Amino acid sequence: MDLGAIVAEIGAEMAAAEDRGRVADYIPELGRVDCNQFGMAIVTAEGETHQTGDALTPFSIQSVSKVFTLAIALGRLGESLWRRVGVEPSGLAFNSILQLETESGIPRNPFINAGALIVTDSILAGHAPRETLGELLRFVRMSANDDDIHINENVAKSEEETGHLNRSLAHFMASHGRLLNAPELTCGTYFHQCAIEMNCVQLANAARFLTGAKSAPRLLSRQKIRRINALMMTCGHYDGSGEFAFRVGLPGKSGVGGGIMVVVPNKASVAVWSPGLNARGNSQLGTLAMERLARTTGWSIFG
Amino acid sequence: MDLGAIVAEIGAEMAAAEDRGRVADYIPELGRVDCNQFGMAIVTAEGETHQTGDALTPFSIQSVSKVFTLAIALGRLGESLWRRVGVEPSGLAFNSILQLETESGIPRNPFINAGALIVTDSILAGHAPRETLGELLRFVRMSANDDDIHINENVAKSEEETGHLNRSLAHFMASHGRLLNAPELTCGTYFHQCAIEMNCVQLANAARFLTGAKSAPRLLSRQKIRRINALMMTCGHYDGSGEFAFRVGLPGKSGVGGGIMVVVPNKASVAVWSPGLNARGNSQLGTLAMERLARTTGWSIFG
Amino acid sequence: MDLGAIVAEIGAEMAAAEDRGRVADYIPELGRVDCNQFGMAIVTAEGETHQTGDALTPFSIQSVSKVFTLAIALGRLGESLWRRVGVEPSGLAFNSILQLETESGIPRNPFINAGALIVTDSILAGHAPRETLGELLRFVRMSANDDDIHINENVAKSEEETGHLNRSLAHFMASHGRLLNAPELTCGTYFHQCAIEMNCVQLANAARFLTGAKSAPRLLSRQKIRRINALMMTCGHYDGSGEFAFRVGLPGKSGVGGGIMVVVPNKASVAVWSPGLNARGNSQLGTLAMERLARTTGWSIFG
Amino acid sequence: MDLGAIVAEIGAEMAAAEDRGRVADYIPELGRVDCNQFGMAIVTAEGETHQTGDALTPFSIQSVSKVFTLAIALGRLGESLWRRVGVEPSGLAFNSILQLETESGIPRNPFINAGALIVTDSILAGHAPRETLGELLRFVRMSANDDDIHINENVAKSEEETGHLNRSLAHFMASHGRLLNAPELTCGTYFHQCAIEMNCVQLANAARFLTGAKSAPRLLSRQKIRRINALMMTCGHYDGSGEFAFRVGLPGKSGVGGGIMVVVPNKASVAVWSPGLNARGNSQLGTLAMERLARTTGWSIFG
Repeated sequence: MDLGAIVAEIGAEMAAAEDRGRVADYIPELGRVDCNQFGMAIVTAEGETHQTGDALTPFSIQSVSKVFTLAIALGRLGESLWRRVGVEPSGLAFNSILQLETESGIPRNPFINAGALIVTDSILAGHAPRETLGELLRFVRMSANDDDIHINENVAKSEEETGHLNRSLAHFMASHGRLLNAPELTCGTYFHQCAIEMNCVQLANAARFLTGAKSAPRLLSRQKIRRINALMMTCGHYDGSGEFAFRVGLPGKSGVGGGIMVVVPNKASVAVWSPGLNARGNSQLGTLAMERLARTTGWSIFG
Repeated sequence: MDLGAIVAEIGAEMAAAEDRGRVADYIPELGRVDCNQFGMAIVTAEGETHQTGDALTPFSIQSVSKVFTLAIALGRLGESLWRRVGVEPSGLAFNSILQLETESGIPRNPFINAGALIVTDSILAGHAPRETLGELLRFVRMSANDDDIHINENVAKSEEETGHLNRSLAHFMASHGRLLNAPELTCGTYFHQCAIEMNCVQLANAARFLTGAKSAPRLLSRQKIRRINALMMTCGHYDGSGEFAFRVGLPGKSGVGGGIMVVVPNKASVAVWSPGLNARGNSQLGTLAMERLARTTGWSIFG
Repeated sequence: MDLGAIVAEIGAEMAAAEDRGRVADYIPELGRVDCNQFGMAIVTAEGETHQTGDALTPFSIQSVSKVFTLAIALGRLGESLWRRVGVEPSGLAFNSILQLETESGIPRNPFINAGALIVTDSILAGHAPRETLGELLRFVRMSANDDDIHINENVAKSEEETGHLNRSLAHFMASHGRLLNAPELTCGTYFHQCAIEMNCVQLANAARFLTGAKSAPRLLSRQKIRRINALMMTCGHYDGSGEFAFRVGLPGKSGVGGGIMVVVPNKASVAVWSPGLNARGNSQLGTLAMERLARTTGWSIFG
Repeated sequence: MDLGAIVAEIGAEMAAAEDRGRVADYIPELGRVDCNQFGMAIVTAEGETHQTGDALTPFSIQSVSKVFTLAIALGRLGESLWRRVGVEPSGLAFNSILQLETESGIPRNPFINAGALIVTDSILAGHAPRETLGELLRFVRMSANDDDIHINENVAKSEEETGHLNRSLAHFMASHGRLLNAPELTCGTYFHQCAIEMNCVQLANAARFLTGAKSAPRLLSRQKIRRINALMMTCGHYDGSGEFAFRVGLPGKSGVGGGIMVVVPNKASVAVWSPGLNARGNSQLGTLAMERLARTTGWSIFG
């Protein structure tokens, strides 16, 4: 069966799915999204694109943005970044403050909220938030080769109004001397990065540089690509990372907007989106669709 | 550079290494092992074997045994095993009892001690410990294609004498009704499985069935192999699993005896051993040697 | 209103109470006790006794026994006991193992189970359990001035069969080198001490030595009495200790058998019993009765 | 020995003490205070005042202010306050955020920082911070019968600049919907209340209403007084509350400025101050002086 047919079949199965999970509603703007949507796009190393469903509908990428800020920070600071944030899975919810307390304000990895705030803080480093957000948008547009990628200001505003937990994390780290910028500036930048909107085709293209394929844009060294993929594998799905590795077997990063960006090293990049989340906060149908894709294609990196 | 030369070069580098970590001494018998040893063995999908250093010296495989009991349990019970043990990294030390308390006595994954006790308990299931240990030895000998693999009774005795923490975990789970057998029986079996001795060549051979290579013995379905590899990737090195994924990029399982068993899907299986441990409880030189090997060969599964 | 009338009125109110809490059933023998019982007895410094309800029905004193072992240990070891157990409230359930892990196996206070095991272990100290239990019974009989106090062997057996959590605590502390005796011996002694049976009149008499009244038997120095009373105030009711201080304002110790022993310094000692427990594991009607008594008599030590 | 002589003797002993603890330096203004100071004042039910050392030197009352805001809140809201904050000791450091996370943002008691923020928030309740601080000053001046009590604006500013941890707690509770006011307003008010300055004589007088003595000003019902005293006993010294109960046996509240306010029900109120703190964050010499006083006078409420 060719890839186009596989994608179409997955799209059809997901369109008929009954248990679609629950839309995140702690950010009011996200709570308004229609749960009955599903989109998927694949870009192969050969440059073919396959898509199905709502693959051209923009959605809020939310935590998927953490991969792009990590790529920028790693490119700029190199290994010194790891003095400020760890590389271990957390075993706790994405927004937990518990481990910060027992580990002196150093977040366990760059994909929990506290760690992502550190990454954003390290890029911000004295610049104006507007400037840093501009740099981030340029990076994402370049990696996706598409200039039509923007921040949704309504979502950003909604995040700002309800972002007390992230502010709590930021002030906690500030109290341990872990932030370079004022907590409001780091949080403000972070709220906006989460509000970037992309569609599946754009996101699948934006992930190409992480495949390491020869045809992909070369934005980072191979070693840095491997490290980002390793982190996505062990920490990319909050406290459901082990399950994603177990069921899908590919590095990926999910967001509460329902998007998941997945890397198939040397072969392809994938974006899948469906707004309903499972109990771990990852897209219910998105995870299921990726499981189907991995099984049918044999793309698991685990043999 | 061919693989034999790569292995020889790594062997030479490790022989000259100064910081060799510290031998685990909480099990007295292990504390007596000479720290200045290093061995490595690779078996390729084509069936070639490359080795260096003390690759024929037997060592206590300790937690590496958890992979073999998991393979047996998964083969026998299938997916129902996951009702009794989770698949998520723990974010805590290998012997922590904390998460058991917050998660009603269900261990987070089969590679922390509590989870491994559940796996052993599920194989034991009413049989005599001696019988179960016999089955385990048969499995390991078959997978390694070598009958000269035994349990070191002195080590087993030493584990029994100092195994209060594992007994504590077992009684804790028993108090939540999570054990099928009396805690003493499950613990007794577990203490003996940890005391199996193998050398690097034997262990590299024993891991072949997890590569999924056509030439490898077929002991489990491909899906089960992928799941075990995924678990080794996210949980195989205690609270250093993220770092191993990050630095090496291959599924592996370490033991406090200083051994690490590593799978290169479809390509090779590796065993490395050096008794000195790093701060996370994983072999200091073993981890370093695997990092060298992965970098030189480009075997990382992350691109 | 005189004390006899107050006690009678409380007895009448409790007999009519509807919400009587729930009997602990994790120890099967305790689960069989009839919930519709309530007894209360007061012995004043002047030596008067007032009683109501089922004040002569024996019940399992359970954790109330921890006060007597503490008195024995403190009398024998003096302040050196505090090297092995702390004096701070725990903020967690009575059987929690969490804090043991973060505090290297040293229990927070002598009234959580782990701490009580340490106290029993310190009295046992090489003696046979039978001998230590004999000493404990002699102490309790002497303090109550009543030889008709015994261990219920059926309850002790029931505790032994279901005592995995206490065994887990004991092995955990043993793994940190905190026990002087084999975990089985310390646990076995502990299971029996919890199975002592007394009635309210006996228990109120047994508590007289803690009032410090001149008429009371002098079994400990005044300073040691104050310390035991302080510990009962801050830690005597598990994670409901703050609430008991807040509502009743008197030092007391509760047990899951539904008994509460209360000290009114220089004035009286009280025992109350009703088997139904509240959400914190303390006697529902017992606590309410003590609140009534403290309010009517003005016996609160807080002004 | 009469009380004046006792106080003088304690003053002499403390003046000669060598181990004076360490001044808190996380608030820079507090770090500048000279460690070699000690003051003590006692006001008896009969209205006598005894003082020694630096009893007229003003110091920052810090957390002692939590008692006054609690008195105001309890007087105004009554028992409904306990829907927003608990009455149990925490078993953790004064500024811990851990329990907030496991208990859905409801602080364990009104004397840990999170709980004190809730109390302040409940008084603030829509008023301007300036207005609320005015009310608090009026209450303290009235209770102390002294109008010369003020807020040190330099200390308040220093707290604001370094108050990230309290802001983190406030935003955390806001994220759980537990705050009535914007976190900045509640924190701003709290930073100022901690910066109130009093001397020992003023503070001992201010505590008179909590003794319940007939001669004392009657600002709260007897039941509310008992409850505040009970809370000071179980929670008044952070994670050293058990030890204070154990060593001193009187309800008290300490602050990181080195002050301790103590109530001797029906008999006296005491203030003691020395800036050096012990490992639990309570005044080293202050605690020792109270231990001496309680032992010599026999004022312990535990018999």
